[in-house]
Formats: sequence, structure tokens, C-alpha cells
Amino acid sequence: MTDTEGGAAPGILSELRPFFYPKAVAVVGVSQDSTKFGSRLCRAIQLFGFAGPLYPVSPRGTDFFGLPMYPSIDTVPGPVDLACICVPSPQVTDVIRQCRNKGIPAVVVMTAGFSETATAEGGQLEQELASLAGDGLRIIGPNCFGIYSPGGGVTQLPGATYPQEQGGLALLSQSGGVSVEFCRPSRDFGIRLSQAVSYGNACDISEADLLRYFEADPQTRIIAAYIEGVRQGRDFFYTMRHVTPRKPVILWKGGLTPSGARAAMSHTASLSGSKRIWEALFRQTGAIQVHSLEELLDTASALYHLPPQTDPRVGVVCGGGGISVASSDACHRAGLALASLGPEAHQHLASILAPSGTSAANPVDAGGPYPPAALLRDILMTLGASGDVGSIIIDRIALSARMRQALESAEDEEMEGDHLLTQLPVELQRRWGIPVIVVLREGGDLPPALEWEAERRRLRGYYQQRGIPVYPTAERAMRALGQAIAYFRYRDRAKA
Amino acid sequence: MTDTEGGAAPGILSELRPFFYPKAVAVVGVSQDSTKFGSRLCRAIQLFGFAGPLYPVSPRGTDFFGLPMYPSIDTVPGPVDLACICVPSPQVTDVIRQCRNKGIPAVVVMTAGFSETATAEGGQLEQELASLAGDGLRIIGPNCFGIYSPGGGVTQLPGATYPQEQGGLALLSQSGGVSVEFCRPSRDFGIRLSQAVSYGNACDISEADLLRYFEADPQTRIIAAYIEGVRQGRDFFYTMRHVTPRKPVILWKGGLTPSGARAAMSHTASLSGSKRIWEALFRQTGAIQVHSLEELLDTASALYHLPPQTDPRVGVVCGGGGISVASSDACHRAGLALASLGPEAHQHLASILAPSGTSAANPVDAGGPYPPAALLRDILMTLGASGDVGSIIIDRIALSARMRQALESAEDEEMEGDHLLTQLPVELQRRWGIPVIVVLREGGDLPPALEWEAERRRLRGYYQQRGIPVYPTAERAMRALGQAIAYFRYRDRAKA
Repeated sequence: MTDTEGGAAPGILSELRPFFYPKAVAVVGVSQDSTKFGSRLCRAIQLFGFAGPLYPVSPRGTDFFGLPMYPSIDTVPGPVDLACICVPSPQVTDVIRQCRNKGIPAVVVMTAGFSETATAEGGQLEQELASLAGDGLRIIGPNCFGIYSPGGGVTQLPGATYPQEQGGLALLSQSGGVSVEFCRPSRDFGIRLSQAVSYGNACDISEADLLRYFEADPQTRIIAAYIEGVRQGRDFFYTMRHVTPRKPVILWKGGLTPSGARAAMSHTASLSGSKRIWEALFRQTGAIQVHSLEELLDTASALYHLPPQTDPRVGVVCGGGGISVASSDACHRAGLALASLGPEAHQHLASILAPSGTSAANPVDAGGPYPPAALLRDILMTLGASGDVGSIIIDRIALSARMRQALESAEDEEMEGDHLLTQLPVELQRRWGIPVIVVLREGGDLPPALEWEAERRRLRGYYQQRGIPVYPTAERAMRALGQAIAYFRYRDRAKA
Repeated sequence: MTDTEGGAAPGILSELRPFFYPKAVAVVGVSQDSTKFGSRLCRAIQLFGFAGPLYPVSPRGTDFFGLPMYPSIDTVPGPVDLACICVPSPQVTDVIRQCRNKGIPAVVVMTAGFSETATAEGGQLEQELASLAGDGLRIIGPNCFGIYSPGGGVTQLPGATYPQEQGGLALLSQSGGVSVEFCRPSRDFGIRLSQAVSYGNACDISEADLLRYFEADPQTRIIAAYIEGVRQGRDFFYTMRHVTPRKPVILWKGGLTPSGARAAMSHTASLSGSKRIWEALFRQTGAIQVHSLEELLDTASALYHLPPQTDPRVGVVCGGGGISVASSDACHRAGLALASLGPEAHQHLASILAPSGTSAANPVDAGGPYPPAALLRDILMTLGASGDVGSIIIDRIALSARMRQALESAEDEEMEGDHLLTQLPVELQRRWGIPVIVVLREGGDLPPALEWEAERRRLRGYYQQRGIPVYPTAERAMRALGQAIAYFRYRDRAKA
């Protein structure tokens, strides 16, 4: 097999650029009813703060939240390079013909009611739609939620409050809902997106096109995808195989079970394909397989924040024997190796830890979740310096005085030196250049509940901004780290 | 095989009662240093509000937060029925002899430094300890965090702020840390405990003894357990097999992987046993197997809140096609069956849903996460009345006006009728008597973040108080429901 079919397409960046960095946007099908897709999308783009002209198009009405409305696309006064179409499905092809007349290069069709209905009429409408694409006009959709591109000032439905900052992760999602369900919590994972594309039925621009675009896009470092089915399997396969050694692609394939496959058929008319074919694809292309939205976000977070690492030996620091057993089991189940510490590190740890209720073997059990900062620093630096570990997980250690107070209901906890304590994981990662992960428990249970939650989020953001991903459980941390290390090992082999 | 070995022990309730409902408690080994175990435990019991006399015992000091201190257990003026021992390990046996002289029937040894150290000295100390038990004096521990029993007014370390109310779930945990890690978040799952016992090295009172006690205890409906290893495997096996048809036992066995087994050895000196033996135990006893703290809590929550159900056919209501695919996959993976709706229900749903962007097949896709209350009610009642489903999962539907506003950034959302919307899942469960589960996303991402979180917790508590468990993802909801239904099917077979 050669790699040429999946090779980079040099023209794709400029061809798809108007979707992501439009100069002027028209939303066709804005309704008087503010709950309809067209109105909601137009309002979302307006609230998001799109800098160029935004043209609401509708045969009825003259004003949309202060913007003049136009009865049809050809009455829009200035040039338009991105049109988002939300009119009922039988009218879509007419509007696209008008778009072509106006020279609009990028069209997103949000409207549903095409092949996913599994009716002859829907199928035919989609074929007509597809036949209008090409020759300077490209189509994303139909049956989708549109595009979020913070660098270009545009957002999808209902993304008025999505982050304004651009980041390094691109999402392609066949499902609009999954796109929203990813973009919203991605903030909690410290992830910022370069783009998110809900591409629906993919009548023209395919998953493979989007993979090629994201591979070429200099903003994008990591690609996450939710896919129910692909139409051009061969192109998809070769493109995926070409992209993964260059940028990691995390792929959540929906509909791998019989029940899921039936649901996918009625959702995006996708032939889900057999589980076996997809397993072969994952094996042969290096795409990173995940099974849920949670795992997609967890894995994305590891790849987003961590430095590359191929060494599977993990060091764990925790405060409790049962916790160390659980971490060890999770480490094994994630395909990682619990590091064996050499005699030097082991002896030093044994000399600084209390003689009972602790463990100087890995996982290093400090005896409780709030070891003094000086002790914690000594443990962490000993592991970092040992050469015995490729990465370190700090599992449910309280990393600020406020957390310590809440956990212990302490009445006289020292708030001094709080910063020294909190920054220890950062110091560890900077000094030894290895991946560090922090596990902060969701302590909603701890009174006063929302204060703990606020403190947890403060610490989470602090670490994420410094290249340290944060998870609520050791199991999720290990699973994500295992995925990241397996990817970097694949990449090294594929490049060799 | 007969069931006699694992049979109920009629005397166990009265024998162990002083551990859980003591009249007077002594904490031996209270130190001037407030960070030591003894002081922390004594302070926790005091703050928790133990109603009877509480005696801090220490050779040094005269006052402990207003309580008079006593130099030794035999100088304590009144009778004592529970002694918690926190002195260094070489002194423990002497203190227990004093307890025996004073006629104390229940002793918890918190101190570590026994067989878990894997030293000859530690092993011998534990043997001596064990030899002192019996004949009117029973021992829990050593190497543990003690007992939380809200009905008896006592708490474990560091449980000053654990809930005061008694509930129906009993926890036995070989690990003190895991006991804390369970008790704290259990509040978030709407679970209240009858008792929690951290039992450590189990030199006298064993896991099987605790199982027998909880089986006999009228407060306890459900038993959750974290176990690293058992010493009397035969007794444990038969007791477990006897208990599970009467009360569900959810068992998280730590140390099933090679790495975990090594950690368990240094934690509680447990021989973890082979994975194969434990798998046979789960198969043959009906104990419910879970693999993490999260799964232990999730499964406990399902059994705690849901009415019994053996019908595996699940109906799902959601608002999005991708979400419906994910729910379907999760349903299949949890060993459940996605219900097929009969023509009557299907036709009615098709007649009330929008013609495109929805699905009248199961999962029922309302087209978005905020269907009008009347539409949602019609969908739910149609499923309930159909006879086609054994339980219903409401997946990420916004169930209050506040949630709808946050999701949609709506500017003009109606707050009227909010109560009617919120109570729909309760109406569904009450009317049809089938399990209903609500999935509420963790929307920490949604600004203003903590307001969403507060609203999510308000709704979560509302549902949990009404017999509806709440999970953050469909995957976790399905997994927990699958465990519950598999248990009730086992129970019916075992009883038959």
C-alpha cells in the first residue's frame, strides 16, 4: 500500500478558509420565531462578536437585534464568503443556486430532512444538494450545527458563550449535539479549540477533507473526532493513516454496538460498519480509539497538556494504602507499568517517611492526603531524580491550604506557604521535563460544598495552564496517560 | 454444599452493638499534638456530637477541648463500652488488658505497625493482639480508621462533618482511606449510611462477621465493601453466598492486578488471591463486582434509590441524535436491552414530534435538550404506558428553567411552570412504578459556572430524595442500572 491517496492536499487550506475565517457571513432562514435554528444561530454569531458584516436573510422582517434584514441572498449589499442555510429542506437547493450566483465559496447547510430521514424524497434532495457543490462552492452539512472558529470570530449553534480564545485542538463531529457536548466542557479540561465542525450528512465536504484541512492547519496540534459512519471508506482510511504520525487523531466511533448502529442509521443515515472493520482501522491507522465523550475529553486533555513521552513507567504519590492499591490496579489496567524504584530512591523515601502507615515503594504512600509541603517536595523530587519513572501521578493529595482545611475540618491550619505547596507539581514537571498529572477529587460532598468546588476549579485551572492535566479519579488519569503514551510510541514507530 | 456455614448468627447483633451504639467512649492515646490520630479521632467524635460520656485518655495533659483527660483507662470514672486505641503498637496489648479489666466489650485498634509491616515483630504483636480477643471483648483492627455510625452518634477519622442522619447502606472497608473516600462523596449520591467500618488487618472481627452483622441489622438494606484480601476464605465465601439473596453486597476487590496485589501486600498484609479465584467467588456467591470507587458509588446509588426491577428493556429519552447513538452503545455495553417500542407508542410519538431532527424510535430524540414541558410529559407517559420498557433513562434533558437559560443563553426563557417541568421524572416513576434515572451533565463549563453547579446539585438532591438516582453521564447510568437489574435477576433465581 502506498501513502499517496492519503497525502496532504496543498490547496485545502485556502479552499476551506472561508468556512473558518469568513470576511462576511449571511444566515439564510432567520425567522420571527426566536427558538428556530436560523434565528438562534444568527443571534449566537452576533453575541459571539463576529467582526465583519453579518446579514440575516428572511422574506419577512426588517430588523434582527439591530441588524438590517434582507429578503434574499441576492439582495445582500456586500460580498459574502460564508452562508449558513437554515431554510426548510425543499428550499435549500434554490438558496444554494443563489449563493453560487453571488459567488459565495462556503456554504453550511444546517437544515435536516435529507438522507437521514431514510425516505426517497430525503435521499433525492441530498443528491441534488451534492450535485451543486464543487467549482468554487463547497458545502458542509446538511443536518448539522455549523462551525465554531474562535480565531475567525464565528460560532456554531448554540455557542454564543463558547470561549473567545483560539487553541490547538480541532474537533470534527458528525453530530451537532456531540459537538456542543464536547465544546462546552472542553473549557473544564483546560482545552481551547482551533475549530469545531459539526458536519452532519457530509454531502460534499467529508471527514477525510476535514482531516486534511486540520493536518495542514498550523493552529491545530490535536484532532478529536466523533464519527458514526463514513461513505468513502478508502479515502478515510488512507487519510487517517497519513495524518496520525503527524498529529494525533482521537476517534470516538459511535454505533459500534447493534443498538448504537440502529440509532446511527436514523440519525445521520450512517452505515456504521462492522465492529471488526473499525477495529482493523484503529489497528492499522494509529487513530486513538475512545468509547465515550468522557474518554474523548480525557484523552484530548492528556495530549493537549502533556509533553511527549514513550516511557510507560509510572510513579504514583498518594496518601493512603487503599488508594495506592486502587492506583496500582488502574495503572495495570491502562496498560502502563508501575515503576520499580531503585535502591537509592527507595532508601531515601524510607528515611523521610513515617515508619508505619506509609510506603516507600511505588505507589509512594505519604500516610495521609496532606503531607507537609517539605515532605511532599522531597518525595516528588526524589521520584523525578530517580530515573526510574517516565511520568508521575499525584493522586488525591490536598495541594492547597484551603483544601487541607476542608478535608480535615482543621481549625488551625497554616495558610502560610500555600503557594509553595500548590506549585510543587509545576516545579516537578519543569525540573525533570516529564509528564505530571494531578488527581483532584470532586469534593462536592465537603461542606461548604461550593467553596470546595470553587477551590478545586481554581487549582485545576492553575495546573492546566502550566501543562498539567487534572482528572477527578486515578482511573481516568491512568486511562488518559495510557492513551497518550501508546500514541507517542506509535508515532515513533511510524516515523522510524 | 450446604448453606449452614454462612447462616445467620443470632447473637451477632447484640455482641457487636457496642461498636455501633456505644453508651460511653474512651479514646486512648490522645496526644498534645493535634495532628496525631488519637487527638483527631477524639476531636472528630466530640464535634460530631456524641451524646454520652467521651473520655480522652493520655498520661499527659488535663484538658482536651473542655473534656477532662484521664492518665489511663482504669482511672476513667464511669463504665465504658467502646474503647478506641491509638497508642504506639508496642503498648497496645497492655491497654487491651486494661480494657478487659474494666469490662469493656468493644475495642477498636487504630494503631498501625502490625502484620502489614511484614516484619517478625509486627506479626508477633498482631498474634498477641488476636489472642486477647474473645470472651466478652471483641477487637476491630488494627491499622484502621474506626467506625462511623450516625445512629449511635460516633464517627471515624476524620468524620466530624459526615452526615448526622442514618440511612440504609452499610460499608465495610479494609482500607481507612477508602472508607473516607466513600463516606464523603456518598452524600452527593443521595446515600446515607447505617454504618461504615474501616476494619484494617481484621485480627479478630472479620469481613464475614461484619457481613453477618449487617445482614441482621434492620437499618441496613444494602452492603458495600472494599476488600484487599480475606484470611478465612471458606467462611467468607459461605457467608457471602448466604447474605446476597437477602441483601445486595457490592464488592470492590482491590489488588486483582499484579501491581495492585503487591500494593495490597504492603498495605494490609493481604494475600490478594488469584484473579481466577475471585472471579469464581463473584460468579458463585452473587456478590456484585465493581472495579473502582466510582463504580462502587454508582452501583450503590442505583440499588439505594431504585425500585427492584428484573426487566432489562430500557427506554431512553434524549435531545440529540449523537447522544442517542452514545446512549444506545452504552445500553448494549451494560448488558441491557434497548427496548423496541410497539406500533402504538411509536405512532403516537411520531405524531407529537417534529418531522425532522427527532426520532420516535427508542432512544426517543426530542430534537433538542429542552423540549417543552407538555411534549416531554407526553413522551415520558407514552413510554411508561407502553408496557414496552422496564425502566427509563432521561438523558441530558434540561429539567428546569434555570438550566434551560444557561444552556441556551436564552434571554427570554419562561420561568413559569418550572415546577411542572422538574417534577416530570417523579410523576413518571410514581405513576408506572418503574425505575427512572436522570442524567444531568456536569456543566461546570457553562457560565456562570458555579450557578449551574448549584442548580445541578439542587435538582440532583430533589430527584435523589424521590427515589431517582442521578448520574453525570449515560454510560455511568447504564452501567449502574445494568448492575442493579443483574442483581435482582440473581436474587429471584436464588430465592426460587
